[in-house]
Order: sequence, then structure tokens, then C-alpha cells
Amino acid sequence: MGPAYTSAYRYFNDDPNTKAVEKTIFDQLLVGMSSTYPDDDTYVTDSAAAATALATSHKTYNGAIAVTKEQLPLTTLLEQAKALNKTTAVVVTSQINHATPASFLAHNEHRRNYNEIADSYLQNLIAGQPIADLMLGGGQQYFTRNDKDLSKGFVEHGYHYINNMADLDRLKQLPALGLFAKKGLEPALGSQYPQRLMQMTEKALELVSASTKPFMMMVEASQIDWCGHSNDISCAMAEMDDLAKTVTLIKAYIDAHPETLLVMTADHSTGGLSLGRAGTYQWKGQSLKHIKAMPKAIAEKMLQTEQPSSIWQQTTQLALTKEQNARLVKNVADAKLERKPTKYLSRFIKQLIDEVTYTGWTTSGHDGVDVQVFAYGKGYTAFTGHQDNTDIAAILMQMVSQ
Amino acid sequence: MGPAYTSAYRYFNDDPNTKAVEKTIFDQLLVGMSSTYPDDDTYVTDSAAAATALATSHKTYNGAIAVTKEQLPLTTLLEQAKALNKTTAVVVTSQINHATPASFLAHNEHRRNYNEIADSYLQNLIAGQPIADLMLGGGQQYFTRNDKDLSKGFVEHGYHYINNMADLDRLKQLPALGLFAKKGLEPALGSQYPQRLMQMTEKALELVSASTKPFMMMVEASQIDWCGHSNDISCAMAEMDDLAKTVTLIKAYIDAHPETLLVMTADHSTGGLSLGRAGTYQWKGQSLKHIKAMPKAIAEKMLQTEQPSSIWQQTTQLALTKEQNARLVKNVADAKLERKPTKYLSRFIKQLIDEVTYTGWTTSGHDGVDVQVFAYGKGYTAFTGHQDNTDIAAILMQMVSQ
Ligand SMILES: [Zn+2]
Ligand SMILES: [Zn+2]
Repeated sequence: MGPAYTSAYRYFNDDPNTKAVEKTIFDQLLVGMSSTYPDDDTYVTDSAAAATALATSHKTYNGAIAVTKEQLPLTTLLEQAKALNKTTAVVVTSQINHATPASFLAHNEHRRNYNEIADSYLQNLIAGQPIADLMLGGGQQYFTRNDKDLSKGFVEHGYHYINNMADLDRLKQLPALGLFAKKGLEPALGSQYPQRLMQMTEKALELVSASTKPFMMMVEASQIDWCGHSNDISCAMAEMDDLAKTVTLIKAYIDAHPETLLVMTADHSTGGLSLGRAGTYQWKGQSLKHIKAMPKAIAEKMLQTEQPSSIWQQTTQLALTKEQNARLVKNVADAKLERKPTKYLSRFIKQLIDEVTYTGWTTSGHDGVDVQVFAYGKGYTAFTGHQDNTDIAAILMQMVSQ
Repeated sequence: MGPAYTSAYRYFNDDPNTKAVEKTIFDQLLVGMSSTYPDDDTYVTDSAAAATALATSHKTYNGAIAVTKEQLPLTTLLEQAKALNKTTAVVVTSQINHATPASFLAHNEHRRNYNEIADSYLQNLIAGQPIADLMLGGGQQYFTRNDKDLSKGFVEHGYHYINNMADLDRLKQLPALGLFAKKGLEPALGSQYPQRLMQMTEKALELVSASTKPFMMMVEASQIDWCGHSNDISCAMAEMDDLAKTVTLIKAYIDAHPETLLVMTADHSTGGLSLGRAGTYQWKGQSLKHIKAMPKAIAEKMLQTEQPSSIWQQTTQLALTKEQNARLVKNVADAKLERKPTKYLSRFIKQLIDEVTYTGWTTSGHDGVDVQVFAYGKGYTAFTGHQDNTDIAAILMQMVSQ
């Protein structure tokens, strides 16, 4: 989530009935910016190198999970917190063994070793226990494999294990593991749980606050990045909305618990998002608010009907020109002749949404632009101005060690 | 100049002989970010509305020069400073009647009324004198017109008038007017004066410091935006370099004159620049350092030779694949058949530079992304965190009025 995402969210979120453009929670908490380059000559980081920087204060190579270039393990913030007997938690919308959470909990030469990383959550122990007292997110397919059921291992360590978001309310104490999807959670857009990051974070705050021990929690709105890879602006705005509500909740928690510090940043930005494109001085992000389904779901509906234009109107409420409408109809027909009709058509739908809203993208990968740093609560001024991602971790490591 | 430009400049500027990525002057001075939206439903500002916001603390429509939606004049920071008997100066690399400087010195319903705006520099008087005691930049064609020579009007007001950068040294006192080009100054890249903003600013600081009166100066690296419109990354990096050196100079001035405040921001970002493109996790901005001429100048050379590839090597030092080289040769041949061969070929050269360095763009216009705020010196902490462009001006208006 780079600067274009928080700018976009402000305009997406703007109340058309007021003259003012409302400030967002991101605006309220902004304190600085951070560089994200990895330890090679690319200047554009992947999530593993960036998460390792944020978890350990060391630069490494793209793909590395909390190891050096020489593949030696680097102590992470959560390991340090656990070693000092603090309560530790991880809350993400990706699988919990994805690059970012993994860089706080494991050490591996490559992020793609998903099973190995999951295994290491039961092998990388401190005082005989896993690093995180609480893990909420996705990843059932890596933790309850046919040949190996890691959830049992966690239960042996005293963890409660749940695998259904509806059971979140039932969690009453730590340690606990909640895996709510095979891999990543469902996207926020069109989901039964559009604010699942907020819900999980609320539960996590309740659980870590039950004891008087200090706590360290890593929360990731993992899928903003995934929407960026997919160049999907309505997906991105829905994930940003879940994050905004999560951060609002955390801010309220800190107002009630002023000894707490929130530091928020992004590991990198994704997609080369711009507000305005192809010479037009306009961004119609507000109209994205009417889109209530993922492009894939819209495509599936369209492929089952002879009236794609009315599906477009129902699901997006975006006005099309005659030419755009004709192009939509043609693309639905073309899609039906493709080997992967839904994929073909959802790509077209994303492009048409971009065209109508003047949203620009340059890449399906990451962008080297600096990201923002937001902070609130005790000691937040340590993060003002420009800093490197490793600087953020170095300060946090010092704070955790106090 | 949005966040992608300062990130890009850091990597462009990185010393390949050191392991560390050197921090830039922008990194040293970053304090916050600013939203830039105009007073309509586009969310993407033009330079006139943004400069009016920064000059007057009022939002207005795209195109407006320091007037409201109802075309009523809005008092500008420089007018206020002049009314309070402070020394006032404007230093830009555009023509001095371009949107940004004009929004500090004049009132007009539309930025495109260049002659009217130039005329108003002799009509919009305070205590019988023009608003700015010093103006350095371009714009001869608007100020010394066939039918009207405004430079004479300035001389009647006691101004020294020079029209050649080489004469800058001769300027010894205020008031003064220096116009060094018909319209904007030559681009920094390939110019005889690659640091002309720094040179003009150095002279301006000398002149305004000669008296004990407080001063207010507006300095604009105007052409970063122009490079962005043209989607020309080597042009942009050369302009950023001139700005970096200018700001370094200003910082040294403030260290010696600690009663001075610098506030720097952008009116908006341009081009939808990204570091990385089309899925590649890399940005080769460092190699742009070898490019010593504008794409137009490279194109002109290529069109006069039968060895375009060796011209490419000499002028860019960027390695091409066989396929890219064949494409270059073909495009030179194609260009020769076009009505505007130089324009055709320089566009291709820019695109090839982007392809080789993995530079992305989405638009020839502006981007709605937030811009950064940099501040240094007395009272700089007033600009930390997130703010709107009108907030910056409101604080400055209060400071100027003290
Ligand atoms: Zn990613
Ligand atoms: Zn512009």
C-alpha cells in the first residue's frame, strides 16, 4: 500500500453530500515515509525481503524469510518479544505462513517453501512453545495436510484450534490458532465478512489484553497487495476499507490503553497505481463504492445470462457509453469462446472499471516508490520523517527489549 | 513531484561503489504529506488550482489564477508579504507568468491568458510597486512583445532588467527582473546551465539578504512537471538533481540564518510514474546517470547519421538486446518517413529508455496521489504529518503576517 492507495481511499470514501473531503484514519496517523529497497541491485523489494527488514531490521534478498544472504537466521521482533515473556500475536488475511507473517515467525531460504514454513511454526520454539500465542488468518491446506496435521501439534502445546470464522466468538483464551480458509481468506469485496481483519483484530486485542503481560501483535491487511497484483481497484478499495476500520479500532484501543504503540507501514507498493490516466485530470473513485462484487463474480454472472449490460448496471452502477457497452457485449461473447471464459472476462471487467474511473496501473508486480509510516500512542514520535524499513524495526527492537 | 520522483531520485543518485543507499536531501527534510484536490469533483488538480491553494489557502477551479470560483481575487502570500514591507522574490525555471508564479503575483480567470497575466505584473501594485522585488525565470516573449515592452515599465519602477543568464553575476541590488528565455528556460538535461535553479536561487538569496528586512521567496523547479507530462525519466532526474542542489543550498543558508524557514511541497504529481513495470521487480534508474542529452537532441543526432546504434551507445550508454537494437534501427528509418521525424523518434527513444530501465507511466497528465511536504528551519514542525495544500498556506499566511 503506497501513497496512491491512501490517496485513493480518501476520495473513494469522500461523502458526496458534504463540500469538504473528509480526512481518513490514515491522514490522522501519518508521521513519515519509508524506503523499501532490498539487499541487491533491483531497488524493488518483494514481500519476503521487506517483511524480513521490518521483522529483523536487516536487509536481505528477495524471497528470504528472516535469513541473511548467507541463509543464517535473523532474530525477529516476535521472537524477541516471546523470549522476554510478552504475549505475541499474528493476525493476517493471507495464509499465516505467507511471506509477511512467516518473516516474523520462521526462518527459511525461500518464501515458497510453504509446508516447510508451516512445519517450522512447531519447530522454532522458545521456552518450549511456538513463537506466537495467537495466530489468526488462512492456511488450512498447509496446516492440516493429508500426511500431517499440524493443528494437532498446536493442540498438544495447549492451543485452541478453530477453523471457522463463525467460531471466533468462542475463543476465550490463549494460546489459540484460527485458520479460516484453505489459503488466503476470501477477498473483502463481496465477502460474508467484509471486515474480517477488523473482527479478528478485535478478538486478538481482547485475548492479549486478558493478562497484564505486555504484548506485541503483527497485523497485516495482506490482500491490498493481492488486489494490486491483479490491478483490481474495487478489490483494493474494499481491502483498504477493512484496514481503515481495523486501524480505527486500534486507535480507540490505544486511547483506552495509552501505554500501547501502533506503528503501521507497508512492505512496498504494488501495481504502479495512479489516480488519473491517459491524460485525463480526473479520478472517479467514489463511484467504486457501488461495486459490491469481485470482477470474477461479476464475470460469472454475465456468462450465465444473455443480458450482460444489465448485470453490469446491477453490479457496478457505472454508466457506460454506447461504445463501451458494445465492447462489453462483444467481450462477453469472445469470453465464451475462450478456454478460461471467467478469467478472460474478469480481466476485461477490471479494465473497463479502470477506463470509466480513470484508474492507471503500470505493472502486475511491485513498485519501488516509498511507502508511508503511520504511528500512534506511546513513543510514536520516534517514527517521524523519512526512514528506512530497517530503521523502523531497529527502533521497535529496542522498544520491545526494554 | 510526487513520492515516486523522490524515491526515483534516491536510486538514480545512489553511489554504486558503496553498499549503503545514500539518503538524499529530500529524505533529510521530509516532514509530512499533502492532499492536492481542487474545488470540483475531479480530485485531480491542475497547476493553477494547486498553486492558488498554496498561495492563498483557498481551493478553486482548475485553471484559476488566485481567484475564487466567482473570479474574485484572493490575497496571496507574496502580496501579504509585500504589503507588510518584506522583500519578495520569485525564482522559477518556467516563464515567470506561468501558472505557479502567476498564482502568487496576479489574479486571472485563466492561466492561459499569458499576456494579460504579464501585464498585470505592472498593474497589480502595492504601495506603487510590483508585488515581487525580484523575478528570475523565463518569459521574454510575454514581457518584451512587439507591441508592448513591459521590461521598460519595470525599469521605470527602478528594476534592473537582464535577459541573459551570463549577466546574473552583474545583478547587485533589488528590485530586479531577469528573463533568460523566450518561454521556459532550457531543460537542465544537456543544458549549458544544468543547475540554473540553484544559480538563480543563490543570487536571489544574496540579493534578499542584502537588507535587514525579512523576505519571502517562492522558488519552483517548474520543469519536473514538464518532464512528467512528456513521460521523460532522464529529463525528470536532471530537473530533480537541480532541485536537490537548490535545496541543499537553501539548507546551508538556513544553517547560517536560523531565523529562516523553508517549506517545500509539490503542487501535484505528474505522469503516474512507477519504479518497476510490466511485472519486473527492478528499477535501473542508476543507469540514467549516463544520459547527457534530451531524447530530442539524441533523436536529432540519430537522424543525421547512418549509425543510430552507435549514437545510442554514446549518448545513453544503455545496453540493448539485439531485438531492441533492431527496433531502434527500424524506428529511425520509420521516423525519416514521418512528417515530424524528431518528434516521432524522440518518443520512441523515451519509450526505449523506459523499457530498459523498467520505468512505468500511466498518463501525460497529472496524478491525484498525495505529495510530500519538506520543511527546515524556524517553525518547521508546524508542517508535520498529513495536511491539505490549503492548510500549508494558512500556516504560512499566519507566519508571514506576524
Ligand atoms: Zn506482492
Ligand atoms: Zn503539469
